[in-house]
This record gives sequence, C-alpha cells and structure tokens, in this order.
Amino acid sequence: MTQATSTSEIVVLEEGSVTLPKGYKAGGMHCGIKRKRLDLGYIVSEVPATAAGVYTTNIFQAAPLLVTQESVAKENKLQAIIVNSGNANACTGEQGLLDAYTMQKDFANELGIEAHLVAVTSTGVIGELMPMDKVKAGVTQILNKEYENESLFKEAILTTDTCVKHTAVQMTIDGKKVSIGGASKGSGMIHPNMATMLGFVTTDANIAQEDLLAALRDVTNQTFNMITVDGDTSTNDMVLVLANGLAENSQLTKDHPEWDIFKKGLKLVCESLAKKIARDGEGATKLVEVQVTGSYSRNAASAVGKAIISSNLVKTAIYGTDPNWGRIVTAIGYSGVPVEPNAIKVAIGPYTVFENGLPSMFVEEEVKEYLQLDVIKIHVELNQGEFSATAWGCDLTYDYVKINASYRT
Amino acid sequence: MTQATSTSEIVVLEEGSVTLPKGYKAGGMHCGIKRKRLDLGYIVSEVPATAAGVYTTNIFQAAPLLVTQESVAKENKLQAIIVNSGNANACTGEQGLLDAYTMQKDFANELGIEAHLVAVTSTGVIGELMPMDKVKAGVTQILNKEYENESLFKEAILTTDTCVKHTAVQMTIDGKKVSIGGASKGSGMIHPNMATMLGFVTTDANIAQEDLLAALRDVTNQTFNMITVDGDTSTNDMVLVLANGLAENSQLTKDHPEWDIFKKGLKLVCESLAKKIARDGEGATKLVEVQVTGSYSRNAASAVGKAIISSNLVKTAIYGTDPNWGRIVTAIGYSGVPVEPNAIKVAIGPYTVFENGLPSMFVEEEVKEYLQLDVIKIHVELNQGEFSATAWGCDLTYDYVKINASYRT
Repeated sequence: MTQATSTSEIVVLEEGSVTLPKGYKAGGMHCGIKRKRLDLGYIVSEVPATAAGVYTTNIFQAAPLLVTQESVAKENKLQAIIVNSGNANACTGEQGLLDAYTMQKDFANELGIEAHLVAVTSTGVIGELMPMDKVKAGVTQILNKEYENESLFKEAILTTDTCVKHTAVQMTIDGKKVSIGGASKGSGMIHPNMATMLGFVTTDANIAQEDLLAALRDVTNQTFNMITVDGDTSTNDMVLVLANGLAENSQLTKDHPEWDIFKKGLKLVCESLAKKIARDGEGATKLVEVQVTGSYSRNAASAVGKAIISSNLVKTAIYGTDPNWGRIVTAIGYSGVPVEPNAIKVAIGPYTVFENGLPSMFVEEEVKEYLQLDVIKIHVELNQGEFSATAWGCDLTYDYVKINASYRT
Repeated sequence: MTQATSTSEIVVLEEGSVTLPKGYKAGGMHCGIKRKRLDLGYIVSEVPATAAGVYTTNIFQAAPLLVTQESVAKENKLQAIIVNSGNANACTGEQGLLDAYTMQKDFANELGIEAHLVAVTSTGVIGELMPMDKVKAGVTQILNKEYENESLFKEAILTTDTCVKHTAVQMTIDGKKVSIGGASKGSGMIHPNMATMLGFVTTDANIAQEDLLAALRDVTNQTFNMITVDGDTSTNDMVLVLANGLAENSQLTKDHPEWDIFKKGLKLVCESLAKKIARDGEGATKLVEVQVTGSYSRNAASAVGKAIISSNLVKTAIYGTDPNWGRIVTAIGYSGVPVEPNAIKVAIGPYTVFENGLPSMFVEEEVKEYLQLDVIKIHVELNQGEFSATAWGCDLTYDYVKINASYRT
C-alpha cells in the first residue's frame, strides 16, 4: 500500500491520515464494548472547524446520526468526533437517543467545549443498547496521552474490516500548504446511498461551509456512493468533513481560482477510502472497478455501473475467474437505462469481450489469467453520449457467506 | 410434494402438469445441446389455443423471445411450443434470430401447422450459437411416440434446477370441468420482472384473449415477479399460457360470473410454480416467504417484500439460522417506501422480533430453532393501510457461490 503519487498539483500520501492536516489529534482505546479489539476513538481539532456531513438515506437512521445532524445544523461547526464500534446504537428507541446525547455531552465536558461541537458516530450490532457504563468510563480516559495515536483511532473504528483504511493529499492554495486526510471503515452492509460505512475527513483548509457541503455531496456521489459490497444500505452510514482553517489560505469558495484543486484533492481522498472499503468487502479477494463511458448522463452511467457491480452473478464469476461477459451484458440490460444493445462494447481488462451485439473473439485462457489479478477492471462503452461514471465493488466468495451466516450485525 | 388440497371451488393437484387439461400432449428428448441430460421439449395442443405471454424486461431480449412475441401478436393464438435448454440463444445477433425462426418453422412443418402458431423458447448459456445440426435433427424426431411423455418435457426444460416443477388445478365453470396445468424451470439469474425462468401454463378453458392476457399480467405480478434468487433479471424469461377451449365452457371474460374462480385457479398454478423456483434457487436450503401487510398500496407492499427477500444479509442470516431482525429492518428502511419506523411490527414465524421501534423480548433459541425449518415465514405489518403483498426467495449459501463461480450461464 505504500505509494506516493503526484499530479502536477496534488501529492498523494497513501500513509497519511486524519492527523496529517494541521491542528488535529486522534486516538483510540478498548473500553469494553467488544471483547478484545479497540472500540472507542476520537478526532479533535485545536479550534472549531467548519463541518459538513452526508448521512444514510435508510429510513431507520441510528440515534448518533440524529444527534450529529442536529448538532452540525446548529452552526455548521464541529471540533471533535467521538466514535465507537461494536454497537450501532440503531433501533434502540428513546434510550438510544439519550445514550448518544450522553456520549456527546460527556466528551464535550472532557474537552471543555460546547456539546453541539461534538459529533457522535457508532457502528456495529443493531438493536442492542449501548453498554453505557463502559462507554462513559472510556470517554473519561480516552484523552490520556497513552491513547493519543492516529493508528489507534483507525483501529478503533473497525468491525468486520480486515485492515485499516486511510489516505491523505497535499496541495498548495494561495501559496499555503493545504492538507486533506481521511480514514474510513466498512466491509459489510455496504451499498452506501449516503453504508455500515463511516468516513472521516479532516483538512486544515479555510473554506466556506456551503461550498464544503456542496463539494462533499458531489464527491460522495462519485466515490462512497459508487461502491457496493452486498447491496445493503446501512442505518449508520455517515461521512464527516472537518475544515479547521489552520492552513491560513484565504477562504475557499467555488469562485476561488484554486477551488478545483481543492475539490480534486477531496475527491482523491474520498475515492481512495471508498476503494479500500470495496477491496475489504466481506470475504472479498479482489477489487472490481467498473468504468462506464459514453452515456447520455452521469446518472445513467452510474446506474449501469452499479447494476454490474451489484450483480451476484458477475461477482461470483469474477471469484471463479470466469470471463462471463453474458452476466455483465445481462446486468446492463436490467439496469433500467435505455441502452442500445448493438452499440455497446464491453472489455474485461485489455480484452474486448462483447461488441456489436455479439461476443468478441477472445482467448478464454488469457481473460481467465487476467481475472486472477487483485484488481479487475471492466469497461463498458455505451456509445450514447459524453458522460461517464466509475463504480467499485468486490467478488462474492464462500467467505462472504461464512461471515454473514455467523456474524451478528 | 404429493398433496391434494381443495378450497370450496378449486381442487389443487400437485402431481398434475401441462397435460392435465384436455387436448394437450408434451414430450422431451436429448438432442445433444447438453452432454447427457434432456435438452429439447414440446407442448402441442390438438387445436389452436388462445395465447398470452409475458416477457423479460431486460433490454437484451433473447432471439426466441422476439420470435415468440411476434408470432403471438399475429392472431393471439398458439398451438405448439418448442423449447430447448443448454443454450439461451441470447446475444447471438442475426444468426441467432435466423436459428430461432428455423426451430419454429421446422417444428411447424413436422406438425403441419402454420409457423406463427409455434412458440420458441430457450434457456441456458448466453452468447453461443445454437448447435443447429443437433437441434434440427431433434425436431424431426421429437414427435415420435417414444418421446411423448409429460415427464420428459419437465426434464427437458431444466438447467441448474435440481428438480422438476409443475402443478395443476381443476374447477367447475358453467357446469364443465376446467383444468389449468403448469410447468416451469429456473434456479439462477432469477429476479423476474417479467427470470432465466420459463413458465408454461395450459388450460382447456374457453376464454377471451384480452382477458386471459390481463389475468396473466396481474397474476404474474403477484407470483413470478415476486420471487428472487439472486436479483439478476435474465434475458430469456417468459411465461406462456395456452387456452384451447376444449372444456367447452361458454367463453370466459372478466364479466363472466365464474371469472374469479378461473383467475384464482390461474394464480394458484402460477404461485405454486413460482414458489418451486424460489425453493430450488441455486444452492438454496430453504424457501423464504415474506408477507407484507398494512401498506398504503400493493406496489409499496411489494417493494418492501422484495427488498427483504433480495437482501444478501437477510439470506445469509437465514442460512445461518440467525434471528437477525436488524437486517430485516435495515432492508425495510432502504426499500424506498416511506414507512413509519415506530409503527412497524416484524415477526419471524410465530415470533415477534421488532415492534414500536425496538427489538421485542424473544427467546433467541426458539427463533433459531424455527429457522431450521424448510419454509421460513417473515411477516411485516406496516400499519399504514389495507394493502398487502407476498414475496418468495431462498437463503444464500456456500453452494450458491460454488455453482456460480464455476457454471457458465
């Protein structure tokens, strides 16, 4: 995973995370919600940060999402995030809501700040009350120096994840170095529309809140909302961005000459985190990327990409290294998008497998070999227009069934 | 499976099939598309029958569907059906279309009837040309007495199916005995909107074509379109009904006093065939039935039922006998239907697991034991109105992955 790539303007620091931008600290500990693994984490900014969030569209929104949305709405600012794993605090009624408020208030007290500056997020089992004695004890200790470590934070937010997920980018805006860092979790119940997916993005940029929110929404639609593991949209999905302004650039708005650089940086962070979630899909052995080009709209291209990436039959074929273009074409056909069957071209990696309404002449063994790679790329050209979209997912394996026939989410 | 139940008006004959109604014969043989199993079948009516069909909504409709739709459109009549398994004749371009016409014409010649009175249907691998030498040879032999057997027909239409699927009902209309028989196939790529699902229904009723079609569409929406195995809608799904009138009842229309009896009979046949497909879903160990009541519309109730029955997480939980109501509630929440979270009641079998926005007090071991049954019933009461819908599916198992990581559809 160690990798530093750069465009002319943006340096990608794959090892970076939420504490790379100026003025942020993060930490994590074991407070006892889970049996052994870390289960409580935080991010704190030195100063109140401009905040924006996107939240699950599931009608059963978990209690912490209600509390966080209400708090962000107050003055579009956050200074801290408290997060637990192991318990989603979802479908927990009035008591669950009280518990989320308690987590918020207690952590605010430890920090000496107002409660609405603290976001509360939870992920884990649905429908069990939070073990508040353990959580409360944890909150009083978590700011101790021994727990202050961004690595501990990344561990503390995981559930069925097999690895931590983080990235960062740096760019120059107004001659100032601006950084964006991110960390996320998610492995199952992943089909975000704005999954049990949590994303935390920090930046030291000085930025106008409404433009930050607009950028986050647009970027989320192209990144987090374009991944799927199992087609299930969780009750707890949330992505939060904090921008504390400590880079001291003049305020970014969509009219700022370097706006596009910032937005591109934000997209790079969100896309990297989203792809890491897809790659770590429950039981997955491969990352699958579906690029759809030549559509009459971005939404239509997204719908075609999501239909393919969501197909259990495509996913099992990829697991079985079977160049089964028929299943890809079938998924395109039921995507709901009025495509033109004879105009479509489908490629698996460098190999064209379907064109002019007919299977192409390809060497089965070559495509089978390609399908043994870690990252599988499928390209669909619709030949209907200029719009494109990319979706990410994973293969469907025996281990997905194993994990979900036994793990209680 | 042997079982004869009866309401006051309709006798269900589980052992019956497409040749129970008067004037139909059926048969099947091995012509060589598959290595060993039967792969070519037919149904023939003594006289031309009033016909109605429903077809896949997948944009990539297979060649035989194009030919059959065109033929039925001519005078709403069919006298014969020729069907092969092992090759779907889908994504096969101009040649595929020519091959479907050839099958139709050759079988019509054998029967001495006009070509448009023959429906052509295919199921199997996508994107390979039909081995027409074998098919043509088969068509010239299949009417031989040795192949005339309704049991051979039911075998000849199967692909990954593990069992034959058929049923029949009998009722009295105008003092005449009227029968409806059906046979179907389907196991994977099943999420019919109008699946690789084929359904054949025969009746000796005398019935007006437009009313037969209206009844078939309505019944299909409540039966075949309410099942899912893997969420993938095939290129070849089709249900055909033939009504040859040999029962000699006065013509059925929706204004006939006994119309409701006929329609109920048709629904019983289609529902039985649909449930058998769901139960025989690839790798499935259980039939899952989701009943949604108290909705503001039938479409909304259907959407909630389909969201639950389609959830990989619900399906794996049932396989794992895990009373995971949280995944059921999550699926309701992303169904797109504006439900009222606190009004919903969810039961697994006789056990209420969720009510008033909170998990119910249930004994985990009792529900786990229930989940070991062959047929699992989930009931969701939405408390928003008077409409209801039922959806059927199956659990998601290791064997689903195994079958689909290796079998080429």
